[in-house]
Amino acid sequence: MSDLRDFTISELSRAYRNKDVSPVEVTRAYLDKLEPGKIYRSLSPERALNQAKEAEKRFQKGISLGPLQGVPLALKDLIDTEAEVTAAGSKVLAEKPAAKEDAPIAARLDAVGAVFLGKTTMTELAFSGLGLNPHFGTPGNALDETLIPGGSSSGSGVAVASHLACAALGSDTGGSVRIPSSFNGIVGLKTSNGSIPKDGTTPLSTTLDTLGPMTRSVEDAWLLWRAMAAKSVKPFEVELAKKLRLLVPENIILDRADEEVKTAFHRALEFYEGLGHDVIHKSLPELSEIPALYNQYGSFASHESLALYEDMLESRGDDIDPRVAKRILEFRGRPSTDYLRLSFAQQAMSRSFWEAYRSFDAVLAPTVAILPRKIRDLEQNDQLYFETNGLVLRNTMLFNFLAGPATSVPCGTTATGLSVGLMVATAPHTEAHSLAIASLVENKL
Amino acid sequence: MSDLRDFTISELSRAYRNKDVSPVEVTRAYLDKLEPGKIYRSLSPERALNQAKEAEKRFQKGISLGPLQGVPLALKDLIDTEAEVTAAGSKVLAEKPAAKEDAPIAARLDAVGAVFLGKTTMTELAFSGLGLNPHFGTPGNALDETLIPGGSSSGSGVAVASHLACAALGSDTGGSVRIPSSFNGIVGLKTSNGSIPKDGTTPLSTTLDTLGPMTRSVEDAWLLWRAMAAKSVKPFEVELAKKLRLLVPENIILDRADEEVKTAFHRALEFYEGLGHDVIHKSLPELSEIPALYNQYGSFASHESLALYEDMLESRGDDIDPRVAKRILEFRGRPSTDYLRLSFAQQAMSRSFWEAYRSFDAVLAPTVAILPRKIRDLEQNDQLYFETNGLVLRNTMLFNFLAGPATSVPCGTTATGLSVGLMVATAPHTEAHSLAIASLVENKL
Repeated sequence: MSDLRDFTISELSRAYRNKDVSPVEVTRAYLDKLEPGKIYRSLSPERALNQAKEAEKRFQKGISLGPLQGVPLALKDLIDTEAEVTAAGSKVLAEKPAAKEDAPIAARLDAVGAVFLGKTTMTELAFSGLGLNPHFGTPGNALDETLIPGGSSSGSGVAVASHLACAALGSDTGGSVRIPSSFNGIVGLKTSNGSIPKDGTTPLSTTLDTLGPMTRSVEDAWLLWRAMAAKSVKPFEVELAKKLRLLVPENIILDRADEEVKTAFHRALEFYEGLGHDVIHKSLPELSEIPALYNQYGSFASHESLALYEDMLESRGDDIDPRVAKRILEFRGRPSTDYLRLSFAQQAMSRSFWEAYRSFDAVLAPTVAILPRKIRDLEQNDQLYFETNGLVLRNTMLFNFLAGPATSVPCGTTATGLSVGLMVATAPHTEAHSLAIASLVENKL
Repeated sequence: MSDLRDFTISELSRAYRNKDVSPVEVTRAYLDKLEPGKIYRSLSPERALNQAKEAEKRFQKGISLGPLQGVPLALKDLIDTEAEVTAAGSKVLAEKPAAKEDAPIAARLDAVGAVFLGKTTMTELAFSGLGLNPHFGTPGNALDETLIPGGSSSGSGVAVASHLACAALGSDTGGSVRIPSSFNGIVGLKTSNGSIPKDGTTPLSTTLDTLGPMTRSVEDAWLLWRAMAAKSVKPFEVELAKKLRLLVPENIILDRADEEVKTAFHRALEFYEGLGHDVIHKSLPELSEIPALYNQYGSFASHESLALYEDMLESRGDDIDPRVAKRILEFRGRPSTDYLRLSFAQQAMSRSFWEAYRSFDAVLAPTVAILPRKIRDLEQNDQLYFETNGLVLRNTMLFNFLAGPATSVPCGTTATGLSVGLMVATAPHTEAHSLAIASLVENKL
């Protein structure tokens, strides 16, 4: 039998049903490898073992609550779990008392039998796509530990890729599920805005925050997403059109991209064509408008996090990552009309975009235009940090604005063993299609 | 037979079914009395007669689309109807081209057979609860034409009370359905925030705008509300607790109230007690927080209308009611954090309030603390205008903030023949209960 930590969610749930392995031994196999640090900020071994024992009892009685029963998960450290502190990557928030109860999304997964190993590290307050955290440390990329893991769900990405969790929950406001998924060579799904309850999670942008699964296969992303969205248990069988029409923007998405990323992306497009699908290249002016709107009005995250954290920045500024503080304070004093016009534009465009392109099945792009850079270089150079951060977030953030789901799936490996992610973005509330189209290239490239 | 314009919706729909009267003759009876002016800004006799003829044909074939079939309605002039200009009380907007299609709420009523007589006057951009409009004229109160009609749905209130429409649609952001209903002695329902589609209507506050029915009976408000909310046709039979627990705030709602209003309100409370219900007086500190939040952060309408109309105010300031312009520009330059903190507070309080008081069936208050004042006095005196406006809106606006439905029902007549309205406010999405509790005092006081 392969290592217990090699099982995906779907393999594990089959093995549990066949009584090949037990939830307690699998949970112990993970816990034996874990310690709090750069990947997990905190562990919850007692709860994990209790959950595993409950799962084990149910399996013995022939009761199954679905594919998550007995599956060890990591939760991004901005999701409340009972009796644990939620630090959200912040030294200041880490001083606050423990959460009184599970966030609804945690309670929902607990209710279907999942096992909570612990809380994973993240960029402070979920700002930035690089994954650096000066307070709790930056986990090294799972494929090369000198490189950044991507963020903000850095610990979740590394944990899943390193088999230190079977799967993980992340959150995505500008790319925070997809970027670490892409950089660590795993699958990540940014869910439709507003589709998963986010009470009991530490907010960054009340408009754009979403929660999503980070997994080692597209099927696992499907299984965890269905549980997160409280949808009934269904096997991953999605009927797709015989001839998909896949839209590739001619603007923005390849600007300043690394050659290896372009190569892998073009191979993925050829692969789809080889399957008989149409790949249509087209300029999408709406995509260029999005960064222009942010330049003009500020971003949702900047306005909303300022309203949420201004007091904390004023009273405890010295204890906050100066790079995070800078981005929050950048738009201080901007009038409410800027925020509202941005909001009106987002509401209008997230409808009109998908209406305009509804004859296409998905928009494809590299998840991130570049490969992960050296942690040390970015730690030492503010200008490089901000430039790289902007470029890393650029492709993903377009689809937060456009409100629909987007899957990042590995679509190629570079000569140095790094992974390139393909992003499959679809219209709001069509997660099943996004995952199904992504699955066509899975393990093929 | 009584005058054709005396029928309520429920009476009219019964008379149509019995073939006592026909939609075309009823529509003509209204159209004969109408001319564009202070009550209706514009009429649509052709469309009305076409709709009436279609309704008539259906009745002849024994087809009914529900209780609105063949019923002549007035629409507040901020709801788009195909090929008509939507002026929203504004000289500037009146210059714009006609709407290309019905707003969804108009299309929905058209689809169930309603007849559209025309568009009713309103305060410019729906600002202010008094009903004054310097561009198109101020309709006199239906009970005393020297007095204000209340606003902003002034024309709708006067039209229904004067039998110049069988019923009307209004909109309510701070009291604009309930205030003219109270002042003109009719029934008005402010619906739950977000429950009726408002695309194709001229916005004032994207957060708080709601659409609601203005009618001559509670049963009619029920029938029109059900149609507006696309709910199935059901008779007005709502089961209420044998012993209702009715909550009367000890703070705010009677401050600076007219004696006649207090008298009528207390009689209504005694009437409920006489029916065996409990009336519980209690201080509700949350209600006092709401004006404090508006003082600190500005109102939703001020922030949101500034974002919507700042350009128009800059380019066409001279053509805008200076009192409306003043209120919109008041909060110019206020930071987005003010807006967002107000928004966060509203989201939290509109949940926690109804949770805290869920053992009560409704909150009762006078719809408006004072009787309608003289049009001329208010036209001449800016300070009096703003003071009176604040007082007129004070009780109603609390329940826009709290997001639930609120019915205004006549609960007494003064010595001079004016009407006093009772407001019955209930938790979000319990319109049926609000209407049923209001109906207990209808025509009893």
